[in-house]
Amino acid sequence: MESILSQINSPKDVKQLSALQLRKLCQELREFIIHIVAVKEGHLGASLGVVELTVALHYVFDAPKDKLIWDVGHQAYGHKILTGRKDIFDSNRQLGGISGFPKRSESIYDDFGTGHSSTSISAILGMAIAAQLQGEVTRQHIAVIGDASIASGMAFEGLNHLGVTKANVLVVLNDNAIGIDPSVGALKKYLTNVKKGTAKDENIFECLNLYYSGPMDGHDLDKLLSELRRLKNIQGPKLLHIITKKGKGLQQAEEDQVAYHAPGKFDVKTGQRLKKNATEQPPKYQDVFGHTLVELAHKNERIVGITPAMPTGSSLKFMMEAIPDRAFDVGIAEQHAVTLAAGMATQGLIPFCNVYSTFLQRAYDQVIHDVALQNLPVVFCLDRAGLVGQDGPTHHGVFDLAYLNCIPNMTIFSPMNEMELRNIMYTAQLGISGPLAIRYPRGHGVHLDWKAPFKSIKFGKGRTLNIGNRVAFLTLGHIGNGIAEFLGTIENSEAFGHYDMRFLKPLDTQLLETVFSTYDHIITLEDGCELGGFGSTVTSYANRQGYTGSIKVFAIKDEFIEHGSVEELYDICGLHRQAITTYLESIL
Amino acid sequence: MESILSQINSPKDVKQLSALQLRKLCQELREFIIHIVAVKEGHLGASLGVVELTVALHYVFDAPKDKLIWDVGHQAYGHKILTGRKDIFDSNRQLGGISGFPKRSESIYDDFGTGHSSTSISAILGMAIAAQLQGEVTRQHIAVIGDASIASGMAFEGLNHLGVTKANVLVVLNDNAIGIDPSVGALKKYLTNVKKGTAKDENIFECLNLYYSGPMDGHDLDKLLSELRRLKNIQGPKLLHIITKKGKGLQQAEEDQVAYHAPGKFDVKTGQRLKKNATEQPPKYQDVFGHTLVELAHKNERIVGITPAMPTGSSLKFMMEAIPDRAFDVGIAEQHAVTLAAGMATQGLIPFCNVYSTFLQRAYDQVIHDVALQNLPVVFCLDRAGLVGQDGPTHHGVFDLAYLNCIPNMTIFSPMNEMELRNIMYTAQLGISGPLAIRYPRGHGVHLDWKAPFKSIKFGKGRTLNIGNRVAFLTLGHIGNGIAEFLGTIENSEAFGHYDMRFLKPLDTQLLETVFSTYDHIITLEDGCELGGFGSTVTSYANRQGYTGSIKVFAIKDEFIEHGSVEELYDICGLHRQAITTYLESIL
Repeated sequence: MESILSQINSPKDVKQLSALQLRKLCQELREFIIHIVAVKEGHLGASLGVVELTVALHYVFDAPKDKLIWDVGHQAYGHKILTGRKDIFDSNRQLGGISGFPKRSESIYDDFGTGHSSTSISAILGMAIAAQLQGEVTRQHIAVIGDASIASGMAFEGLNHLGVTKANVLVVLNDNAIGIDPSVGALKKYLTNVKKGTAKDENIFECLNLYYSGPMDGHDLDKLLSELRRLKNIQGPKLLHIITKKGKGLQQAEEDQVAYHAPGKFDVKTGQRLKKNATEQPPKYQDVFGHTLVELAHKNERIVGITPAMPTGSSLKFMMEAIPDRAFDVGIAEQHAVTLAAGMATQGLIPFCNVYSTFLQRAYDQVIHDVALQNLPVVFCLDRAGLVGQDGPTHHGVFDLAYLNCIPNMTIFSPMNEMELRNIMYTAQLGISGPLAIRYPRGHGVHLDWKAPFKSIKFGKGRTLNIGNRVAFLTLGHIGNGIAEFLGTIENSEAFGHYDMRFLKPLDTQLLETVFSTYDHIITLEDGCELGGFGSTVTSYANRQGYTGSIKVFAIKDEFIEHGSVEELYDICGLHRQAITTYLESIL
Repeated sequence: MESILSQINSPKDVKQLSALQLRKLCQELREFIIHIVAVKEGHLGASLGVVELTVALHYVFDAPKDKLIWDVGHQAYGHKILTGRKDIFDSNRQLGGISGFPKRSESIYDDFGTGHSSTSISAILGMAIAAQLQGEVTRQHIAVIGDASIASGMAFEGLNHLGVTKANVLVVLNDNAIGIDPSVGALKKYLTNVKKGTAKDENIFECLNLYYSGPMDGHDLDKLLSELRRLKNIQGPKLLHIITKKGKGLQQAEEDQVAYHAPGKFDVKTGQRLKKNATEQPPKYQDVFGHTLVELAHKNERIVGITPAMPTGSSLKFMMEAIPDRAFDVGIAEQHAVTLAAGMATQGLIPFCNVYSTFLQRAYDQVIHDVALQNLPVVFCLDRAGLVGQDGPTHHGVFDLAYLNCIPNMTIFSPMNEMELRNIMYTAQLGISGPLAIRYPRGHGVHLDWKAPFKSIKFGKGRTLNIGNRVAFLTLGHIGNGIAEFLGTIENSEAFGHYDMRFLKPLDTQLLETVFSTYDHIITLEDGCELGGFGSTVTSYANRQGYTGSIKVFAIKDEFIEHGSVEELYDICGLHRQAITTYLESIL
């Protein structure tokens, strides 16, 4: 039989298909996604779950005239493939290739860039209001949002506004009871009741003044087509509630939805995930965090753990399994997570609130207003700090040093290795007088034997790794390992000092005084943004102290960094050995 | 008759009263608040509306053993008066006096500091979970939250978690249909239906798995007492929905709820607000913003205005009145406001999104992820930047320069006067290629004749106000007027240059080069935090350029600044003429 998908170059082509052909297209689209992701890696389960929805939306609506936003965007692979990116889909998430998320600059069919959750309702409402003002009365506006994402506060804000407008918006609630990890919360419980028919008559979305349709099987293409056609002719805001299965069509992905969210490489025939090569390597920082927290929490009953919807990614799951009463997945609710931690801290608990660096941006006010202003002892564990690689600019954790540094009462620490991470966690639970942020990267540390006995760390004290006489390297965090390696390989290494500053705040001013009085040249290195970051802070302090030597700041320039491998991206940012060598040659 | 209130020194004393005495206490409390606020100013309407609730809560529950959080905190005056602060209540909001908001460091009865909205549910749940873990099974936890605040996303996140816990939490929904301005949104509409009995059977809070009670009259003390007693014996999460009238007991405050939110001084007998002295003075920046936006929007139909619940405070109300279709109050929903603006901007509109500096912290991720990353032309008007005075540390707008500066694609402008504000707004709507933040202070500008013809401003270009030869003052924003005045009064003013830099970003590097090559000393002055702010950015640039003169940064040190008059606070921060004079003497 002839392939349908091979003939689809834009949504126009989808519209030419018969009902039978549309069903076949769904099958082929699913297979196409599986075949590419099996080899090239990426997010699998979400896109498999919305294949029928994707085909139906592009059949019924008229992209790019009609506007379509995929919340978060993990589920948009089918959309990308049907909208002219089939042939480059195998470049997904690679440097120079297409983004793993919808992206405005990539395609006229990507009406709004996503990545972080729960933005779609607000954005589509903005477009729909614009249409009203511009007299575009027939334009349709669709936001596809999952049940985990719609439970986030921002989505509620969008619904609360949407319900009192006459905007031509269709919210498709893709209810699969899972985000990256299983959904949680009262709304999830309510939606379960709706599905089971045990909810009462009135509907929570009707309470919010939306026209509600559902729940319906989101894999029944014919029904989807007919219901979307019907809804297209109903003016005003409406919500279609569809039930889908994440990973639909690949047995393993349906059965182990968490692992197959982004399974890595897998065997396309059997579905089995391929094991990475078995050479022993240092643990991930994430696992060190997770296991260390359990180890400490067993001894210190004041410790609690909190994650906003990232139990697996952050490894808080270890504590959720070992000590379920004291480990909380609050769903995609960073704001709530932080203030919940603040409330707990007032009562003598020691909350370890683990939030990805990029997602703590969602709770910035809560960090300032609820934690720092009240000087409460909350431990923020900022996972995936620095450049994260393939997830790209929506997910890099490069602003945290700058946005946290300006907050009074904050202590900011970045471990250079696993032991440092363990030891600062140990130190934190011994008792801290105010908030502490610990930021560490995605991925592996540097030590195989990382389970050394705990040692406490003195706040505001850096480490002298190497004493020299001409050039001092000041580094913060994991990126310092590159300098340590570098100094191990060059001649004349007696010229070079290396200081792992550990704390951005409080700065180790005593150590800096020593550096100022010893070296004519200072080089700072960090995996965060240059403006307001570590190097900038050192420079300001040096200015106050009248340091007259040179200071060179290696940091991420003032631009958004695209997706690619972590190594490629650090090269692009000029944070590599060659750049440092070139600079050294210029001053020595 | 003997005064009851005079005998109340703590909630214990409230518990001794008879039903009749409790009613009399309500009357006296209301009068006490009116009498003090009439003279000392402050927030009036909110506290008048919850007098019965305040008395009832302190009668039925056992503070400080039981935990009680007042969301936002404008309504907590009665609470403060009943919990030992009656005699110092006349120091409210003054330097060294009590805070206008609940504050942990002020009283053991203030369980959680508030100021920004919608934090109470998360915080009280944290306390209630702590109680469960610590075996405090009888402890009660109450959050009082208004209908405007509960509609904010963060509150929804709290409810969504609360509903799946067994935490001993009572949420009192104080439904008066108004925040500072009238409430908006679908939830408000729904609550109106509930009050009118036109909602269907099921309840939105029951959908979220909460035990619901109400709606009931929140001014009926006896019913309140009996219902609170009943609810105290029901385990688990519950919500009591009470209907109150903001400003209750003062006719004018009931009738003009917006003006009497914080009416300034008023005649305690007639209730009439006292007019300020009639000497003509420059307009408020807020009014310049509001009128200028209307003026521009009449000519440019692409302009839209957005405010998250501050139409009066921001003066967006002028546009809401003049061009209602294009001006949006979205309620307390900063996150939504920003991404709504982003959605509009994708369709060619030019959104002026007016958010108080301190509240933009709530939408930090949306500024980065939805606006800046996509380089969308959204104009952020950051009102109440710098120190705001009596509202204190929860409301000072001192972090914005630092937290915005690190975001790529942002342009950051601060007008030194009203014309500069008008002209940058004019320039913005002519067309900008990406986001622009305009930050200006609360209060009056400096020119009586501010309605000059528009002139466009060249992006990234500062103004040379005075050329000198020894010391250059670089200032950003309104605070530069102090330097201009200062230089007008001193001798040897030919030694001093003054540059209004206007843009933090892009920095006017050309102007800076001139400054570097002309002056041995540079002084920077800003009304924001030192770490990562304007002076820090100039210092970093000077370091890169090898400037060898001295740079002195006048900015707000790394600490939270308390409440007091704006003048007092700038003195405390060392941002006053004497400090600058002293420094000048040290270098000249």
